[in-house]
Amino acid sequence: MPMPLPTFDDVLAAAARIAPHAHATPVLRSRALDALAGCQLHFKAEPLQRTGAFKFRGACNAVWALEDAMAARGVVTHSSGNHGAALALAARTRRIACHVVVPEGANAAKLANIVRYGAQLHTCAATIAARETTAAQVQADTGATLIHPYTHPHVIAGQGTAALELLNAQGPLDVVVAPVGGGGLLAGTAIAAAATAPGCRIVGAEPEGADDTARSLAAGERRIDFVPDTVCDGLRGTLGEPNFELLRAHRVEVVTVPDAGTLDAMRLLWQCLKLLVEPSSAVALAAILQQRERFAGQRIGVVLSGGNVDLDALPWERAA
Amino acid sequence: MPMPLPTFDDVLAAAARIAPHAHATPVLRSRALDALAGCQLHFKAEPLQRTGAFKFRGACNAVWALEDAMAARGVVTHSSGNHGAALALAARTRRIACHVVVPEGANAAKLANIVRYGAQLHTCAATIAARETTAAQVQADTGATLIHPYTHPHVIAGQGTAALELLNAQGPLDVVVAPVGGGGLLAGTAIAAAATAPGCRIVGAEPEGADDTARSLAAGERRIDFVPDTVCDGLRGTLGEPNFELLRAHRVEVVTVPDAGTLDAMRLLWQCLKLLVEPSSAVALAAILQQRERFAGQRIGVVLSGGNVDLDALPWERAA
Repeated sequence: MPMPLPTFDDVLAAAARIAPHAHATPVLRSRALDALAGCQLHFKAEPLQRTGAFKFRGACNAVWALEDAMAARGVVTHSSGNHGAALALAARTRRIACHVVVPEGANAAKLANIVRYGAQLHTCAATIAARETTAAQVQADTGATLIHPYTHPHVIAGQGTAALELLNAQGPLDVVVAPVGGGGLLAGTAIAAAATAPGCRIVGAEPEGADDTARSLAAGERRIDFVPDTVCDGLRGTLGEPNFELLRAHRVEVVTVPDAGTLDAMRLLWQCLKLLVEPSSAVALAAILQQRERFAGQRIGVVLSGGNVDLDALPWERAA
Repeated sequence: MPMPLPTFDDVLAAAARIAPHAHATPVLRSRALDALAGCQLHFKAEPLQRTGAFKFRGACNAVWALEDAMAARGVVTHSSGNHGAALALAARTRRIACHVVVPEGANAAKLANIVRYGAQLHTCAATIAARETTAAQVQADTGATLIHPYTHPHVIAGQGTAALELLNAQGPLDVVVAPVGGGGLLAGTAIAAAATAPGCRIVGAEPEGADDTARSLAAGERRIDFVPDTVCDGLRGTLGEPNFELLRAHRVEVVTVPDAGTLDAMRLLWQCLKLLVEPSSAVALAAILQQRERFAGQRIGVVLSGGNVDLDALPWERAA
């Protein structure tokens, strides 16, 4: 049973719902980056969000939107990354159980983080089938509600609150650029921008090695049969069905970026903003630097999505 | 001719003078770091200051405090680090000349930064004698005013504005911790805290490999004959004479920290605050983590002084 697509009213409801729990993150500027890019850049600093990523917005909205009786049975998801940690903390803010299905061999530091926020881990084989079977079993055993990382309408609406805050704080923008993996952030951004800034273009920034969104929008139908190959570990997911519908409806553009450009952009962001952003965020600045003429002289909002970097494996060393 | 020691009125005047040019930087919190340290930490985020360090405050105050006739002849200093860049930008805000004396072989990236802000470089041999001769020659040739990196009273007063903002924003604090190299930031911090928060203790954090301040305060006289050996490149300077007088007058305490502790603290700050801090800033958190019982349960302000990290030479790799 497909859930209804989220609307701008859902984004506004999300903003009110998460306000007691989530940070209204600052917008950062850099004269040096403006000069380099030839435009005015307004960076929404989601690395400063709780759990270090925008994911907390959607997870928090989904958790607090549950009826009490449903909420009492807890929530479950399958994500060893930022969404898993975000859902764990969101559940803790409501004092309900959280189950996270993780594949064998997942990054130990990330798992420790999820456990630190109070979630229960359920390990399964590292296949999609095993993941879905295990999540279904947890649902059957506990009655927990599945909160998908990016197709759940409350998740999409929650992610849209980042762009809502950005546009409210900075006034009219010509463009908002956000990374795209599964499309939760980008779809929420499109909903928020279309309603608050009608002339504003929405641009998704996508790694060349996981360009299913660019290909899907070009083809007019989802093209999701691919093996991701990118340093952007947060953008390896497959474009979701409702996400695809929303991006198409809002005429979202997509720029694809090679990892080398993303890593250069990440260094620039570290140096100029003093903000630790992860590669999956830097792809947005990389898209702008790669297509300067497309953005020249404009007022551009950039959603820097997260800052959970593995300092023991800095990507530019791996890339070297 | 010794200049008078700066007072709290000078800090207030500095705050007004630099307000049009400097950022009022945010104060960051981290539940994870509070839990780890066993106290309440309020981090003043000077990496987000212009030029990436608190140094801009003092330089800006010194530049704008000059009479017009003096200002017209420009300013000069000898510092290839954060103060050089800060003075260059401060001079540019007043559209006056800035001369920076730098030793042969100084870091090219830092020099490029100083030039980018519009200063003129004067290269000399890498000795203190050559540096002072060259600076004196520039003064003789141009009439420029020498702005010492940390003994100049307007520099000390300007640095005090960081703690002033911190205490104004966060209310009463039990302790304020700041790094100490030459003592400009720590002396300014002591002046600001003594006046606005009378019960507040002032603690300097100093690398073990450059512990002249700890030794000087213990001895009751300056002990500055040492060869610095620390990864904290901003803290290798020698405690200044007025700085020593001010620290002694305000009964400032000092905690010395091994570089290993500083590098651990830097990683924690990157991970938990998502803020790129340099080792010379992280020493302050390291001091707190090293002496937990001394700070347990207290409300502590921490001045994170700067974020100008050389990403090609990450210190923990050098230390490994």
